[in-house]
Amino acid sequence: MDQLLRYFQRELPAINGFLDKESDQLNGLVKDVAKHIIGSGGKRIRPMLTLLFARALGYEKDDFHAIACSLELLHSATLLHDDYLDDAELRRGKEAAHIVFGRTETILAGDALLALANEMGARYGIARLSWLLAKGIMETAEGEIEEISFSKNPSLDRKIYMDIIIGKTARLIECACRCGAALAGATPEQEDAAGEFGLNLGIAFQLVDDALDYASPTSETGKPEGGDLKEGKVTLPLILLMEEGDKAGVDVLLEALKEKSFTETQLSEVLTLVREGRYSEKTRDEAAVYVEKAKACLSGFQPGEELEVLKQAADFVLTRTK
Amino acid sequence: MDQLLRYFQRELPAINGFLDKESDQLNGLVKDVAKHIIGSGGKRIRPMLTLLFARALGYEKDDFHAIACSLELLHSATLLHDDYLDDAELRRGKEAAHIVFGRTETILAGDALLALANEMGARYGIARLSWLLAKGIMETAEGEIEEISFSKNPSLDRKIYMDIIIGKTARLIECACRCGAALAGATPEQEDAAGEFGLNLGIAFQLVDDALDYASPTSETGKPEGGDLKEGKVTLPLILLMEEGDKAGVDVLLEALKEKSFTETQLSEVLTLVREGRYSEKTRDEAAVYVEKAKACLSGFQPGEELEVLKQAADFVLTRTK
Repeated sequence: MDQLLRYFQRELPAINGFLDKESDQLNGLVKDVAKHIIGSGGKRIRPMLTLLFARALGYEKDDFHAIACSLELLHSATLLHDDYLDDAELRRGKEAAHIVFGRTETILAGDALLALANEMGARYGIARLSWLLAKGIMETAEGEIEEISFSKNPSLDRKIYMDIIIGKTARLIECACRCGAALAGATPEQEDAAGEFGLNLGIAFQLVDDALDYASPTSETGKPEGGDLKEGKVTLPLILLMEEGDKAGVDVLLEALKEKSFTETQLSEVLTLVREGRYSEKTRDEAAVYVEKAKACLSGFQPGEELEVLKQAADFVLTRTK
Repeated sequence: MDQLLRYFQRELPAINGFLDKESDQLNGLVKDVAKHIIGSGGKRIRPMLTLLFARALGYEKDDFHAIACSLELLHSATLLHDDYLDDAELRRGKEAAHIVFGRTETILAGDALLALANEMGARYGIARLSWLLAKGIMETAEGEIEEISFSKNPSLDRKIYMDIIIGKTARLIECACRCGAALAGATPEQEDAAGEFGLNLGIAFQLVDDALDYASPTSETGKPEGGDLKEGKVTLPLILLMEEGDKAGVDVLLEALKEKSFTETQLSEVLTLVREGRYSEKTRDEAAVYVEKAKACLSGFQPGEELEVLKQAADFVLTRTK
């Protein structure tokens, strides 16, 4: 992981500086909200992937920050709206923006960040970049909506679950990778390979996220343990548990999820069952399959620092503990 | 106005059909919200302007609907978020979307429409179109934010008022006109002329809107009389009134606006003063200046049906009563 760490350490200051400079231009009403969410310790995986694919495909100019950072801003925009609509209290261990700044400021900051992201991607005058970004925005919005729609009518349908994590997470990571390739003027095949890498990595990333929700103490993830469960979100650890349960037990669980009517006793029972059945670990095992698929997409890329870092990034997604 | 009416009657069915078809693809959770706002009787001025400028500049293909309708969807998206954040109860005489469908559905429908609009504009693979749309989205978001920011700290500053109406209304109308020109492959000078027309028309449009708010009975505009005043919005009729008032009276008014603490008596007093001072009519007079500026931008365009309709559209903006 040494190369990954060094690469991130080298590139992150400029990425964070760029995000800072762009959010400084926003209206005073929403600037602090934007800075709150941007500064809340995201991993900057999306901008780094754009940069890595651009360079892996021979891009040598230094003007990649606008498109790379646009993906981070888009991601931040969805977090703002999501946390508000979920009534979430925490984001990465800090108070959620809508609690600190209020609903108007938070909704509008989300709108402003989405608009800014889109504008940053259009600065290059490259139609392909704008198309990729537009599609990424559309798919992310759809994923967000599917997730909330699913939470109103939860089931243990794996297909729906996969559609949701692809929509809300993996498509934007795919988009980040494709944008890097498109910036470098890649062939369609090269862009597709980058996109496939991102899609699989994004799925793995979300699976690990969903596993961590059942596995980690609050202090490390910044989220309350079993937070998804409390919010009525059905994720893979819970689906795995339910797949092995009897019908009556599953129906009771689904009803409680739908109504968000868990008692503390029910909650801790479910958490114990997930722990005993090792469903968090089993979710990680499924993620491992997608990480391997992602790495296989890199076979056609030239050896070099970026290729190494991309491989290490894929492994890191799997092993991360927060 | 005959040509204008005929032109709209001829083109509107296809525009409405396209809007319908596109919104049909949205997720079930937000589809009805989208259809509610789209079907609530907008004038389709933005798509018509795109079409008119494209054709005025020689565009003969029939694939203009995606870019033309993208502006309408953008506009609808901002209405959804605006009405929710304003706690508005009515929109064009119908119950506002958030009251019918709830906050989650309404916020997400706004996000989805914004994303869809952006994606529709990117379908052409024309970098200039994506850039114009991205800029239009950015400026509209900024205008929306400035307006809400202004309502938290109202003043009788005309410059701020003009910035707000340019941002929240005129820039998107400018964008609609520029997009039509860009689709037709216009020269930068032609696109600028179309844009200037739109900007001036948009300012006039909003001035008339603000005049109507003080002038019309509810039944015709679909809005409660003096609705802006009740919502604490400072618009030109009120600025004109305050410019002629004594300082003490103005301070009382500004404080009541800021706190939204008008009594029914105060409200009807202000409405009477605006009526007696003919400030609604005077606002319309200012709009007339912008309509003339808009028409002057058309001097370089070829004579023809579109040019006539554009002139009539400019006049219609001024004379409309709802």
